[in-house]
Amino acid sequence: MKIIKIILAGPRGRMGREAVELIQREEHFELVACLDRVNEGKRLSDLDGFPQIDAPIYKDPVKCFQEIEADVLIDLTTPEIGKIHTKLAVEHGIRPVVGTTGFNEEELQELTELADAKKTGVIIAPNFAVGAILMMKFAQMAAKHFQDVEIIELHHDRKLDAPSGTGIKTAEMISKTRTPKQQGHPNEEETIQGARGAETKDGIRIHSVRLPGLVAHQEVIFGGEGQSLTIRHDSYNRASFMSGVKLAVETIMTLDVLVYGLENIIE
Amino acid sequence: MKIIKIILAGPRGRMGREAVELIQREEHFELVACLDRVNEGKRLSDLDGFPQIDAPIYKDPVKCFQEIEADVLIDLTTPEIGKIHTKLAVEHGIRPVVGTTGFNEEELQELTELADAKKTGVIIAPNFAVGAILMMKFAQMAAKHFQDVEIIELHHDRKLDAPSGTGIKTAEMISKTRTPKQQGHPNEEETIQGARGAETKDGIRIHSVRLPGLVAHQEVIFGGEGQSLTIRHDSYNRASFMSGVKLAVETIMTLDVLVYGLENIIE
Amino acid sequence: MKIIKIILAGPRGRMGREAVELIQREEHFELVACLDRVNEGKRLSDLDGFPQIDAPIYKDPVKCFQEIEADVLIDLTTPEIGKIHTKLAVEHGIRPVVGTTGFNEEELQELTELADAKKTGVIIAPNFAVGAILMMKFAQMAAKHFQDVEIIELHHDRKLDAPSGTGIKTAEMISKTRTPKQQGHPNEEETIQGARGAETKDGIRIHSVRLPGLVAHQEVIFGGEGQSLTIRHDSYNRASFMSGVKLAVETIMTLDVLVYGLENIIE
Amino acid sequence: MKIIKIILAGPRGRMGREAVELIQREEHFELVACLDRVNEGKRLSDLDGFPQIDAPIYKDPVKCFQEIEADVLIDLTTPEIGKIHTKLAVEHGIRPVVGTTGFNEEELQELTELADAKKTGVIIAPNFAVGAILMMKFAQMAAKHFQDVEIIELHHDRKLDAPSGTGIKTAEMISKTRTPKQQGHPNEEETIQGARGAETKDGIRIHSVRLPGLVAHQEVIFGGEGQSLTIRHDSYNRASFMSGVKLAVETIMTLDVLVYGLENIIE
Repeated sequence: MKIIKIILAGPRGRMGREAVELIQREEHFELVACLDRVNEGKRLSDLDGFPQIDAPIYKDPVKCFQEIEADVLIDLTTPEIGKIHTKLAVEHGIRPVVGTTGFNEEELQELTELADAKKTGVIIAPNFAVGAILMMKFAQMAAKHFQDVEIIELHHDRKLDAPSGTGIKTAEMISKTRTPKQQGHPNEEETIQGARGAETKDGIRIHSVRLPGLVAHQEVIFGGEGQSLTIRHDSYNRASFMSGVKLAVETIMTLDVLVYGLENIIE
Repeated sequence: MKIIKIILAGPRGRMGREAVELIQREEHFELVACLDRVNEGKRLSDLDGFPQIDAPIYKDPVKCFQEIEADVLIDLTTPEIGKIHTKLAVEHGIRPVVGTTGFNEEELQELTELADAKKTGVIIAPNFAVGAILMMKFAQMAAKHFQDVEIIELHHDRKLDAPSGTGIKTAEMISKTRTPKQQGHPNEEETIQGARGAETKDGIRIHSVRLPGLVAHQEVIFGGEGQSLTIRHDSYNRASFMSGVKLAVETIMTLDVLVYGLENIIE
Repeated sequence: MKIIKIILAGPRGRMGREAVELIQREEHFELVACLDRVNEGKRLSDLDGFPQIDAPIYKDPVKCFQEIEADVLIDLTTPEIGKIHTKLAVEHGIRPVVGTTGFNEEELQELTELADAKKTGVIIAPNFAVGAILMMKFAQMAAKHFQDVEIIELHHDRKLDAPSGTGIKTAEMISKTRTPKQQGHPNEEETIQGARGAETKDGIRIHSVRLPGLVAHQEVIFGGEGQSLTIRHDSYNRASFMSGVKLAVETIMTLDVLVYGLENIIE
Repeated sequence: MKIIKIILAGPRGRMGREAVELIQREEHFELVACLDRVNEGKRLSDLDGFPQIDAPIYKDPVKCFQEIEADVLIDLTTPEIGKIHTKLAVEHGIRPVVGTTGFNEEELQELTELADAKKTGVIIAPNFAVGAILMMKFAQMAAKHFQDVEIIELHHDRKLDAPSGTGIKTAEMISKTRTPKQQGHPNEEETIQGARGAETKDGIRIHSVRLPGLVAHQEVIFGGEGQSLTIRHDSYNRASFMSGVKLAVETIMTLDVLVYGLENIIE
C-alpha cells in the first residue's frame, strides 16, 4: 500500500497522543511533521512521551505546508485554530481530516467551493467513533421497517446536556426514513412527569441516563409485532475515535470534494 | 414431601389455566376442588381444555370449604370476589394465596387479625413473578452501596400508565436503604423536556419505554466509580407468575400470620 | 394502494392464523381463498376462530388456482406440500411467498428457471422475522469495519441444536465482508473446555445459551479499540414472522424472478 | 465521624495512586505515612503527581509501624511484600486491608490465629469491586429460586485464561445454594464443538467472550418459566476497586478477626 504522509496538528493533547500512536501503528501511515503552538523548531522526540518519533515541529502552518511534502493533515486542535488550518491546507493541496464542529453553514459552503476548485478532499467529522456512526446508520436503515423506536443514551454524571448530541442526531437520521407515527398508546398518561422521556418534534422518545462510572453509551430500540431490534454502541475511552481517523485518512486519498460527517464515507 | 391439597378459585381464566397446569406438574400438589361462578356441580374434566382432571366444581364457597378437606386456596378471581373468598377461607382454616391488589388498609388490618386469631397463614401478593421480586430485593440491597441509581422499565405500547407500578415500587424499596443524594450534575439541563425521566420524591429517575413487541421488562442500573451494576428482569408471559404461586403455596404451610408481598417470604 | 389478492395455504396452523390476522389488518390485502387439506367446500367463516372471514376453502390447488383470480399465494404448510403448491402457483401466474426450507439446490434451480420463463416473482424465505434479517445484514456491514466479532445466541432449553441456524447463518454472512483474522490472544487457554465457544471455520466464535423462559434471542458483538457495537434481536413470539410476510407480499408484486432469502429484498 | 489514620503501601502504582485520591476525597480518612521500597525519607509531596500531600515515606515497615500511630494499613504492593507487611502490621496492632491473592491455606490459618491473638481485624480481598461482589452474592441468592443459570463473561482480548476467575468464583458461589440439575435439553447436540460453553463440575455453563475494546464485564442469567433474571457487572477501569477499599477500611475498624473475601462483610 502506498505510504500516506501525514502532518498532525495538536500532537500533545489527549486525542493527539492517540493519533501519534495510530500513525506509528499503521505501516502505511508516516508522520512527516507536527503543528504545535509551542515547541517550534524542536523535534517530536524531544518532547515527553514521544520517544524515537522523529518529526519536525512547526508553529507556522504556512511555513509547514510549504516546506513539508504531505498528503494529509490531521487536525485535533481547537475549533478556532482548526478552521484556519483547514483552509490553509486545502490551499496548499493537503487534504485535511478535521474533528471540529466549529464550522457554520457559510464557512462550510466556502470550504466546499475551495475544495472543488482545488480538487482536494476534505473530511470534517463531528464524531470519529466508527461504531457510533454505524449505530446511527443502521438505525436509519431499520426505521424503514420499524416505525416504533426509542433511544436510551447513558453517560457519566458530569455531562450537562440531555439528551446528548448523538441522541438527537440519531433521532434526526431516523426521521429521514421513518414513516411518521404517533407512538405509544394514544391515552397513555405520565403519573410522574418526564417518565416517557424527551419527545423530538417527529415523536421519537429519547431517555437520558446519567450515572457515575458510565462513559458514553447509546441504545436504539425498535419494536414490532413479537420482536425487538436493538443497536447499541459503548464507548469506553477516547481510543474509540481513532478508528474513524484511520478510515478518514484512507478515504480522503480518493476524494476530491468536501465530505461532512463520517456517515457519508462509511459503507 | 407431604401432599398439599388445593382448592383453586377461577380455573377458567388465563392465570387459572396456568395454575391448573402447575398443580398437575408438581407431585406434592393435589387439586381437590374448584370454585367457579358457573359450572356448579360439574367436574373439571367436563370443561374444555382440562382432560383427565377430576375435581368437583363448586359455586358456593362456604359449601366448598365445608365439604372439601383442603390445605390451601389459590384465588385467581377478581378483586371483589377474591376478598370474600379470602375471608371465608381463613374462617374455615384454609390458607389463602391471593393475587389481588384489591384490599385497602382497613381490610388488610381486619384480615391480619383474623389470621392471628385463627392461626392461619395468608399470603397476599400483588406480583407473583419471583424474578421481579428478586430484582427489587437486590436493588434494595445494592442501594446500601451505590447511591446513584436509575430505573428503565420497558413495556408494550398498550400500557396506559408511566412509570409502571413495579418501577415505582422498586424506587420505594430502594429509598428505604439508599442514603439520599441529589443525583446527576447540579447544573444539568434538559434541552428537550423529559429527557432525564420521571423523578420520584427521593430523587430517583425512572424512564418508561413503550414499544410494540415488548412484554414487561425492567432494568435497575447502579453506577459508581469505574463500574456499573445492572439488575434486569424480563417477563415473557404469564407463566412467570406461577413460580411465585408455587413458592407461596409451599411457604404458607409453615405460616400462621398474614404476609403482604412476596418479598417478605423470599430469602 | 392497489388491493393485493391473496390465497393462503394452511390457514388453521399457528402461523396460518397469524397470517389471516395480518391480511385482515392490512387494508390493501384481500383474502380471496384458502388451501386446506380438509374442509373442502366450506368457507373460512364456518371454521372455529375465523368469524366473519368469508373466503372459499379448496383442497385441490389446481382447481383453486384456476377458479380464483389471485396475485399472491402465501404458503405456510409443510415443506413437502409447499413445494408442490409453489410450482403450481408459478405455472398459473400466481406469485408464491413461501416460508419453507425444504428446497434442495436442484429444485431451486428448476424453480428459478420456471419463474424466469413465466416472468413471475417467487420469494422463498427460511426466516421471515424482519428484525433478525436486519441484524444479520447490519452485522455483515459492520464487519467491514470491525474484524473482531463474537455471537451469543440464547434460546429456550427445549432447543436441540447448538449453535442455532441463525447463529451459523450470521457468521457466514459476516465472513463475506470481514477481513480474516485470528481473534483472541494467540496464547489464550481454556482452563475448562468450551469456554471460548464454537469456532466457525472462519474463526468466529458462537456461544449458545439455553435456559427455560427464553424464547429466541441473538446478540452480535463487535469490538474495536475503546468501543463495542452490539446488534441484538429478540423474538418474543411467532407474530414476529408476519412483518416479513407482509414485506414479501408487497415486494413480490414488483418482482419477475425468484429471490431466496429475505435479506435480498430488504434494503 | 472519627478520623481513620491510614498507612498506604505502594503509593506509586496505578492502584496506589487511586488509593491516594480516595484517601484525599474521604473526609474521615487521613494518610499518615507511605511504605515505598524507594524514596525513603522523602515526603509524598516530593514525588511526581502528588502535589500538596504531606506524608512521610518509609522503606522499613517495622520502623514505620513503630513511629507512626495508625489505624489501618492499605497494602497494594506485590503478593510477596504484601504478606510480610500484613503480618508485621497485625503484630503492631495495625489493621491490614490487603488486595493480594498470594496467601496459601497455611499462611491464612497462621494469620487468622495471629489476628485472634491480637484481637486485630484483617481483611484480605482478591476482588475489591463492590459491584462484582454484589453480583456474585445476588447470583447465589437467586439460585435458591432458579436452578437454571448460565454465565457470560466478557473481557478484552489480551486476557489469557478462560473462563475468568470471577466467572469460576461465581459458579462456585451459585453451587452452594442451587439444587443440582442437569440443564439444557437432555438430547441437545453441539454441531460445532464448544457452542454450549464450559461446563463446571456442577453443570453450570460459562461462556467467555474476548474482544478488543472491552474491559471486564459479566452477566449471570437465570431462566425460569416465562421469565429471566439477569445480573450484570461492568468494570470500566481500576477506580472500581476503590469502592471496596473504602468499605474495607470502614468495616475493619469494627472487626477483631480475619475476614477473607469482601462478600463476607458486604450485607
